[in-house]
Amino acid sequence: MKVPTKFLLASVLFVILTFLGCSKPTQPSPSSASQPSAVAAVDPLPSWNDGPAKQAILDFVKTTTDKASPKFVAAGDRIATFDQDGTTWVEQPIYSQVLFAFDRVGELAPQHPEWKTKMPFKAVVTGDREAMAKFTLKDIEVIAMATHTGMTTETFQSLVKDWMAKAKHPRFDKPYPQMVYQPMLEVMRYLRDNGYRTYIVTGGGQDFVRAYAQQVYGIPPEQIIGSALDTQYQYNQEGQGILMRDPKLLLNNNGAGKAEDIYLFIGKRPKAAFGNTDGDRQMLEFTQASGGASLEILVLHDDATREYAYGPAQGLPDNKVGTFPQTLYDEAKAKGWIVISMKNDWKQIFAWGK
Amino acid sequence: MKVPTKFLLASVLFVILTFLGCSKPTQPSPSSASQPSAVAAVDPLPSWNDGPAKQAILDFVKTTTDKASPKFVAAGDRIATFDQDGTTWVEQPIYSQVLFAFDRVGELAPQHPEWKTKMPFKAVVTGDREAMAKFTLKDIEVIAMATHTGMTTETFQSLVKDWMAKAKHPRFDKPYPQMVYQPMLEVMRYLRDNGYRTYIVTGGGQDFVRAYAQQVYGIPPEQIIGSALDTQYQYNQEGQGILMRDPKLLLNNNGAGKAEDIYLFIGKRPKAAFGNTDGDRQMLEFTQASGGASLEILVLHDDATREYAYGPAQGLPDNKVGTFPQTLYDEAKAKGWIVISMKNDWKQIFAWGK
Repeated sequence: MKVPTKFLLASVLFVILTFLGCSKPTQPSPSSASQPSAVAAVDPLPSWNDGPAKQAILDFVKTTTDKASPKFVAAGDRIATFDQDGTTWVEQPIYSQVLFAFDRVGELAPQHPEWKTKMPFKAVVTGDREAMAKFTLKDIEVIAMATHTGMTTETFQSLVKDWMAKAKHPRFDKPYPQMVYQPMLEVMRYLRDNGYRTYIVTGGGQDFVRAYAQQVYGIPPEQIIGSALDTQYQYNQEGQGILMRDPKLLLNNNGAGKAEDIYLFIGKRPKAAFGNTDGDRQMLEFTQASGGASLEILVLHDDATREYAYGPAQGLPDNKVGTFPQTLYDEAKAKGWIVISMKNDWKQIFAWGK
Repeated sequence: MKVPTKFLLASVLFVILTFLGCSKPTQPSPSSASQPSAVAAVDPLPSWNDGPAKQAILDFVKTTTDKASPKFVAAGDRIATFDQDGTTWVEQPIYSQVLFAFDRVGELAPQHPEWKTKMPFKAVVTGDREAMAKFTLKDIEVIAMATHTGMTTETFQSLVKDWMAKAKHPRFDKPYPQMVYQPMLEVMRYLRDNGYRTYIVTGGGQDFVRAYAQQVYGIPPEQIIGSALDTQYQYNQEGQGILMRDPKLLLNNNGAGKAEDIYLFIGKRPKAAFGNTDGDRQMLEFTQASGGASLEILVLHDDATREYAYGPAQGLPDNKVGTFPQTLYDEAKAKGWIVISMKNDWKQIFAWGK
């Protein structure tokens, strides 16, 4: 199986190292100033500071929904696509889905006594952080396949739902559904209120995200496009048709795959796209090439205090975490894409605090 | 490339033979009795005769949309899937997409002088019906790949749109968009009026159907699920992202593939499904196993005068045209699926005549 690039790119070892050694910085205390004011109540984007990014979003919606505008977009063509990890919620210090896979190893271990002595499982089962830090991509792949397949689609959905309800972010100690960026939720709602269909287009697992997307983003399963495994139609003991998850990748929804899969699922180009890594580049290009008005936004992680700082913000154009290389930054500037500074553009990052 | 089973099943040779030798029976003359009456104006299914099939559809909608009903279905779960060829429009004497491919050979021939002497193209270019009648599946595959790939997704859409506007059904001499079954259009509209999302789930090409589905069925591209080729993200001369159609099958949307792809695209099981061949069996099973109320309908082609008669209606359980074998008929009866008799259940088949 080829593993989705974003899901397991070269960053994974560095990410795991970061994760294993991660400290818990002081959590910012909630401030009363973060409460919506009377003015904010009529502002569709109250968690955004005034500035070019917020203005670009407001202008885009106004331009494309005004029938008198030459850049008016018909209702059926109002499509907005959002990357997930690092764009709509936290991707540091490690993708939530990798944490899920590690936790699944622990839960499945009693049924697999051989894992006590068999790498890479042994490292996870015994909590051997030194060994986990040396995991290769192949190791992660083996763990993902062992924990994500050989069950029905319904069973997998239940496992993810259960995990989402209890697993907590290692630094912020909050359940993952609370690690979503409040400003992005506002943009999604604002777009939907103006006739846009919002899609998550993620390098992560399609079924993983579908398990919680309605609750977290208000987005139904048919508007989640992600990396997907093959399924096999079979019959259960009652003779009913079920789908078993196979250890074979059908869609690698990253990079060029995002443009290809958006077309596969929707049959149209988006008019707005939001991302944060090089794996989102083609999605933004594909959106801009739709002609007429379009909106392309990249999230720059430059707020180590309230969230994380990585990518160009760290002066590390070849930094592999988050994979926002200088080339992407340059393309954004050349093409008029909006680069959001989390530090400056976002008044509040999480609903529970600054 | 593996070719979708339904698209090119063992029937294809017989179908071609039928096509090549097809006569044009007398066209039924429009009758004033087919005009909607005052009563029909309030009937959501005016082209249906009263009977168990019509009643089952009315009951299903009532039961699943009545909040007081124990079988009420929430708005987000109201999903109805329709096979296309033979279910929503005519599939005899040959699939429209095969006709499209043959016509494309003729149009492309000047750019391919080698086709004059190279089979299988030579047969199509020279109109050699005897040779065409001997086409193997591989021949059809070669023609499909040569005529459906090596172009952008936008170009392909335009080609299909142009063809749909001019190509006529060989027997009825009407453009294909008029070969749609009026009773099925009424069911689609009735379901949509009651909060159902209607999908086409076809063994035919996804992009082929998307090119006309909005016009013909009122169904947007994101609700068309079909057999799909891989695409490759590339850049055009202006540096814009485009998708090139590759001669590689990504989704074979037939049989088990229909259940698998419905889940891939929608993430849920349908509550209603409509088909007419063995390739729709798993879709109907998958729908019924959703639990609660569900509706499974098979179209039986038993009206040689107004349309065609094939499958069990001909007393040919192993008949390969339309592939409605006795086993499917038996499963339908055993599981309480509705088998529509076109002859008895449909008052009017086409909008332009009886």
